[in-house]
Amino acid sequence: MEQPSIEIMVRVRYAETDAMGVAHHASYIVWLEQGRTELLRACGVLYRAIEDAGFFVVLTDLQARYLAPARYDDVVMVRTWLDGLRSRGMSFGYDLRLAESGAPLLTARTEHVFIARATGRSTRAPSALVDLLHGFTKE
Amino acid sequence: MEQPSIEIMVRVRYAETDAMGVAHHASYIVWLEQGRTELLRACGVLYRAIEDAGFFVVLTDLQARYLAPARYDDVVMVRTWLDGLRSRGMSFGYDLRLAESGAPLLTARTEHVFIARATGRSTRAPSALVDLLHGFTKE
Amino acid sequence: MEQPSIEIMVRVRYAETDAMGVAHHASYIVWLEQGRTELLRACGVLYRAIEDAGFFVVLTDLQARYLAPARYDDVVMVRTWLDGLRSRGMSFGYDLRLAESGAPLLTARTEHVFIARATGRSTRAPSALVDLLHGFTKE
Amino acid sequence: MEQPSIEIMVRVRYAETDAMGVAHHASYIVWLEQGRTELLRACGVLYRAIEDAGFFVVLTDLQARYLAPARYDDVVMVRTWLDGLRSRGMSFGYDLRLAESGAPLLTARTEHVFIARATGRSTRAPSALVDLLHGFTKE
Repeated sequence: MEQPSIEIMVRVRYAETDAMGVAHHASYIVWLEQGRTELLRACGVLYRAIEDAGFFVVLTDLQARYLAPARYDDVVMVRTWLDGLRSRGMSFGYDLRLAESGAPLLTARTEHVFIARATGRSTRAPSALVDLLHGFTKE
Repeated sequence: MEQPSIEIMVRVRYAETDAMGVAHHASYIVWLEQGRTELLRACGVLYRAIEDAGFFVVLTDLQARYLAPARYDDVVMVRTWLDGLRSRGMSFGYDLRLAESGAPLLTARTEHVFIARATGRSTRAPSALVDLLHGFTKE
Repeated sequence: MEQPSIEIMVRVRYAETDAMGVAHHASYIVWLEQGRTELLRACGVLYRAIEDAGFFVVLTDLQARYLAPARYDDVVMVRTWLDGLRSRGMSFGYDLRLAESGAPLLTARTEHVFIARATGRSTRAPSALVDLLHGFTKE
Repeated sequence: MEQPSIEIMVRVRYAETDAMGVAHHASYIVWLEQGRTELLRACGVLYRAIEDAGFFVVLTDLQARYLAPARYDDVVMVRTWLDGLRSRGMSFGYDLRLAESGAPLLTARTEHVFIARATGRSTRAPSALVDLLHGFTKE
């Protein structure tokens, strides 16, 4: 049974390339963040609202495997899914491909913890968020 | 009579280059900001302390003239000076050169206003800051 | 008579914000570049093809006026138009607004020259490009 | 027996922070690259010279563990060491700490392959480079 996932398209900006003529490896990390934003939105969650409610979702672990380079003006398909949901954190998986050919570019996984803005300390996930995410993973 | 100025050295990062093989034009804008941070430090002002005291210094106008490109691993000399100080804002001037040859890379000017963090509105500069900056410009 | 222009929508990424809680001023400069890419595409020109044909289009002058901040997840409407076309260069104008309210965020103007990749020197614009752009500006 | 390593100091730029008020997680990835550049320089290798000799060193794998946030104007100590050297690639290890307190911020590991610029394909490391790196790891 496959995890539900969402796909977004990101066009490589010139500013995201480097002197090798391809997208710099740090650019992909920013695209993963866009994938998370849109996955949450698809679940009915605005990340902005999580922060307004007094939480930060902080990245604690990042693993990425670069398979092929993307070039300026390429459209990259970023597929994102919720890979795990714990009381105090969550993790996401990613699969990035060239939109045109489907050629794989990158696979990645990130882990995150919930932080209470007031204390700066790790905290339990807001229950409304957990409910929305559970609903999404089960569909 | 020349304005007192400070110089910092910035080495061009690979991530700051683009597919033209040179530093991307947005990278220079970030170096200007480093120049301001260090000019303020030389005046005895930590920009961080300005924010802690309840102010933001917000950029409102940017003018930059690009004269020649910098390349990966080049050391860029960023000269920064206070170009104007008003009750509610200040402006800075910049001259960027290749450290090795002195070849001019960029000239720029930025304007900034003081914002009260509590209200988000324009405000008068904190007087302690103005005193320190006046001291620096007069030396 | 108004210049023909194109509009693109850019959603503010978390990575584009800074500790003031708004989009960093250098982020807008990257959005201008996206505006140019899409204006050229609307004229039937791929910037990538210009480079493949042996040219770079290099930014030489940048003027930006920041009117109000954009926040994470805001959708920014970037309107771009060709502001001038000369034998060896061109300039663009920009008007950025919050998509939701139409509130103005930034106005800007950039100038660019054509560089021959082989020599690194300023050169005349490729005539096919000039024809396509002239067609667009006159419509 | 500990690997020889080098340390560089990186001051967090305002542009590298995000709306959480701390350095964005992608900023650290760029600092790792600076660590590699300076480790190679300490070995007598200019990365720029590797490229001039017809090679790219391409990142293929990235693992990073974020332990604590760095803030604007913090000085970050980036310790970098060569973690492995193979005929067609190499890997690096990293330990990032707050310079002032020594508090750990991030540990990371990256893998890289050598690419021939002419063909875009994986290739053996240039032997002069391997000799220099071996000399460094054995000292």
